Amino acid sequence: MAELERRFRRLSHIEGAEGVLGWDWAVNMPKGGAAARSAQMATLAEIGHGLLTAPDLPALFDDAATELDDTTPDTDDVADHIGWQRANLAEMRGRHAHATALPADLVVRQAEASSACEMIWREARAANDFARFAPALDHVLSLAREVAAAKGAALGLSPYAALLDAYDPGRNPEDIDRIFTRLEAELPVIREAALAAQAARPQPVRPHGPFPVTAQRTLGIRLMTMAGFPFDHGRLDVSHHPFSGGVPDDLRITTRYDEADFAESAMAVLHETGHALYEHGLPKAWRDQPVGLARGMTLHESQSLLIEMQASRSRPFMTAFAECARLAFGADADDPAYGADNLHALMVRVKPGLIRVTADEVTYPGHVILRYRLERAMIAGDLAVTDLPGAWAEGMARLVGVVPDTDRDGCMQDIHWPTGSFGYFPTYSLGAMAAAQLFQAARRALPDLDDDLSRGDFAGLLGWLRANVHSQGCRWSADELILRATGAPLGADDFLAHLRQRYLGGAAA
Amino acid sequence: MAELERRFRRLSHIEGAEGVLGWDWAVNMPKGGAAARSAQMATLAEIGHGLLTAPDLPALFDDAATELDDTTPDTDDVADHIGWQRANLAEMRGRHAHATALPADLVVRQAEASSACEMIWREARAANDFARFAPALDHVLSLAREVAAAKGAALGLSPYAALLDAYDPGRNPEDIDRIFTRLEAELPVIREAALAAQAARPQPVRPHGPFPVTAQRTLGIRLMTMAGFPFDHGRLDVSHHPFSGGVPDDLRITTRYDEADFAESAMAVLHETGHALYEHGLPKAWRDQPVGLARGMTLHESQSLLIEMQASRSRPFMTAFAECARLAFGADADDPAYGADNLHALMVRVKPGLIRVTADEVTYPGHVILRYRLERAMIAGDLAVTDLPGAWAEGMARLVGVVPDTDRDGCMQDIHWPTGSFGYFPTYSLGAMAAAQLFQAARRALPDLDDDLSRGDFAGLLGWLRANVHSQGCRWSADELILRATGAPLGADDFLAHLRQRYLGGAAA
Repeated sequence: MAELERRFRRLSHIEGAEGVLGWDWAVNMPKGGAAARSAQMATLAEIGHGLLTAPDLPALFDDAATELDDTTPDTDDVADHIGWQRANLAEMRGRHAHATALPADLVVRQAEASSACEMIWREARAANDFARFAPALDHVLSLAREVAAAKGAALGLSPYAALLDAYDPGRNPEDIDRIFTRLEAELPVIREAALAAQAARPQPVRPHGPFPVTAQRTLGIRLMTMAGFPFDHGRLDVSHHPFSGGVPDDLRITTRYDEADFAESAMAVLHETGHALYEHGLPKAWRDQPVGLARGMTLHESQSLLIEMQASRSRPFMTAFAECARLAFGADADDPAYGADNLHALMVRVKPGLIRVTADEVTYPGHVILRYRLERAMIAGDLAVTDLPGAWAEGMARLVGVVPDTDRDGCMQDIHWPTGSFGYFPTYSLGAMAAAQLFQAARRALPDLDDDLSRGDFAGLLGWLRANVHSQGCRWSADELILRATGAPLGADDFLAHLRQRYLGGAAA
Repeated sequence: MAELERRFRRLSHIEGAEGVLGWDWAVNMPKGGAAARSAQMATLAEIGHGLLTAPDLPALFDDAATELDDTTPDTDDVADHIGWQRANLAEMRGRHAHATALPADLVVRQAEASSACEMIWREARAANDFARFAPALDHVLSLAREVAAAKGAALGLSPYAALLDAYDPGRNPEDIDRIFTRLEAELPVIREAALAAQAARPQPVRPHGPFPVTAQRTLGIRLMTMAGFPFDHGRLDVSHHPFSGGVPDDLRITTRYDEADFAESAMAVLHETGHALYEHGLPKAWRDQPVGLARGMTLHESQSLLIEMQASRSRPFMTAFAECARLAFGADADDPAYGADNLHALMVRVKPGLIRVTADEVTYPGHVILRYRLERAMIAGDLAVTDLPGAWAEGMARLVGVVPDTDRDGCMQDIHWPTGSFGYFPTYSLGAMAAAQLFQAARRALPDLDDDLSRGDFAGLLGWLRANVHSQGCRWSADELILRATGAPLGADDFLAHLRQRYLGGAAA
């Protein structure tokens, strides 16, 4: 086991370096640095791939399994440690299986194509130039299909299931179809009822801008501090698209600022803080080992959405938030636009729109279901990149009820496909399901939760999340972790109940 | 040759990644990220070391040499290409010889100790706490001595010469002793005469601050633009100590700001720009190959000092500089403090002081000679770290004429020793010699140089440097390059003549 741990520690260092270089790419890198950075990252990916595909790994896995079987635990602590080691070994085997499914040159070609496509996407998106973007995406897609086919064959999964498995291990498309089909049936009803209820209430007032970037940044840092972000282990910067990067002890989150609206950036900051708190809370004893990593993207997204959608957009937290916002922008204490009820009404406003990242939680799943259907079709070979704009318009009309005028606000809005991330999108909405379910369980365990949030005190919530989610690393599967933490398997019940309470219920939630 | 080029290209990618991670460490990293970053960089260093020490390299070197010998060049272009390939092979052999001198575990221990010591140094320096710093430095020194002994034995050099060779290949301590002994004899005379001449002239007026950081940054970017810095391939940031990092196509230079004095930061920016222009001008056809790298630290420092000391502090350039400064800080056109003559008098003011990085060019070599004597003694085992403060005070009194009150302003002021860089300091003053010699040659080739600089036009100078220095990479040794570019071997004549003209001459220079 020691030799395996040594090798995977090296892999973790390389992946950590890639994490920082990737953050720098998005935050700092001048355009002319792309070719060199691309080459650096491709070489690091190739070295990491070499570690994961070393020919002697299967024998080392077998030796380690025998070693663990031969150990008789004489205390609970030892038994627990062996449980972690077994889980660590299982994760190692899983990563090896994914990596050996792919020839080294495919890994390199994919990394290079993704880096190149991302740069083209940044420019083409700004210029709304789909024709320029399409060939680069087509190249990335063809490599993703190659990857899907190779992994599917090696893992005994369908091509798309094999892609999913890389982001949310063990997840299969049938789970997603079951949950998404239910959402497709119930969400339109909730959406229409929410829009009607919203129209019948007095309309909220928007705080009057502009909101200077420096003041918004100060607000963001205040909110991160409230939520428990450890600033000795991380920082807040600006990028094109908010994200959470870096490594567990050096968390790099980003946002972007719109001087006409502070809420979008503030909520993005809280969202990314949720991701960062998960990373930082991963088990310290297993840093740099596979079992010490986050348990897939569904659970990761559950942590960002729990902090943003469940906790931070709640009516209780709006009391604390309103005070922070007044302070940041020098508003009067009796300014009605900064009243907690008014801000809450703005925060939970339903408004079918074109852009996924700014969508409300009622219409967000429609955006995801669209992307899920389209990427399944692209991976299956049933949809060509050149047909994407048309398919996008058709799907938006059906699933969200609006149609974009431009590709910039349509199929070019997201970074995922340009960077080769197919199979990632569904985890956003599965994460929303998990967030609602975990928050409901936390609420049962923490009777004072609403009071705490109204004072901006996240300590109790963070403690519960650390104990039940963060500290568990990859000790259990995502579904097993959710079952242990909430008493029920992952489903849509708590999410739908949450929407009904917040958007159709009597008391503000 | 192709296989060797492939391997050294991978090495270049890894070293490029280290370059960006090192920049991030100094510019962005939160304190709590140090352990993880240290581990990442140690692993990358170990992988790089593994590439340089691969057991089959000597055979590949011999094959490549035979391949080159067997090629009959039928055109001048082919002959030139073979010349570059031969030089590339020689550089590869040199790097291999340095790397195989050291066992892999020593490389890792040194990287870890340096990272740890740098963090302690940052805190201990702020707290002026030499007692806290000393054990960490002692550990770094003991590893440096181990390195020096191992390299000396492998390369057939004295331990200190082996350290020098890593920074300035082929340089030996006797060269340095010859030049430094002459400087020690002549500089005190020039210094005293300059101080007397300076005291006899009307005293210059300091522009009245404060100078806001944002305005200083704008000035810095304007100066970088004038000097030809390619902003699509680089950026300016802030760090504790100015430096030039990144890679040739992604240049990361830093400065620091003092709101009471804009000149220090502006000149640091021009200094680092000189380094960056060298990197960016290295031969594009040999990017990622050893022969495409900069030719050692003496030549590197010559490029920063040529831009800063020779060109930017000259009386002609002060005409352009004064206009930029007035614009940046909103000064009146007739403000006497912003007059070109007045600013020039401030820029070339001789003032024996405690701090190397802010020393004038007349007293700077004294600081370097001190460090050179002390580090030679430490590497030889003749000076213990605990005796450093006393030896520092004695040396400063003798070589610069002033003595520090604190270790912060004494032996703890520089980042070099804490990060394990012994043998680096002499290259600063050898670089000053080379800068004066190269600038003199450029002046002979460019009759309009003073006029150009007075208009802030560096294009002619940059063109000459690109052709004669930057584009040459490691095609020749540093001394051969200087001989080809200037017609004379490296010496102190032009430097001493420059000082006499600028500080003792009639016309302002």
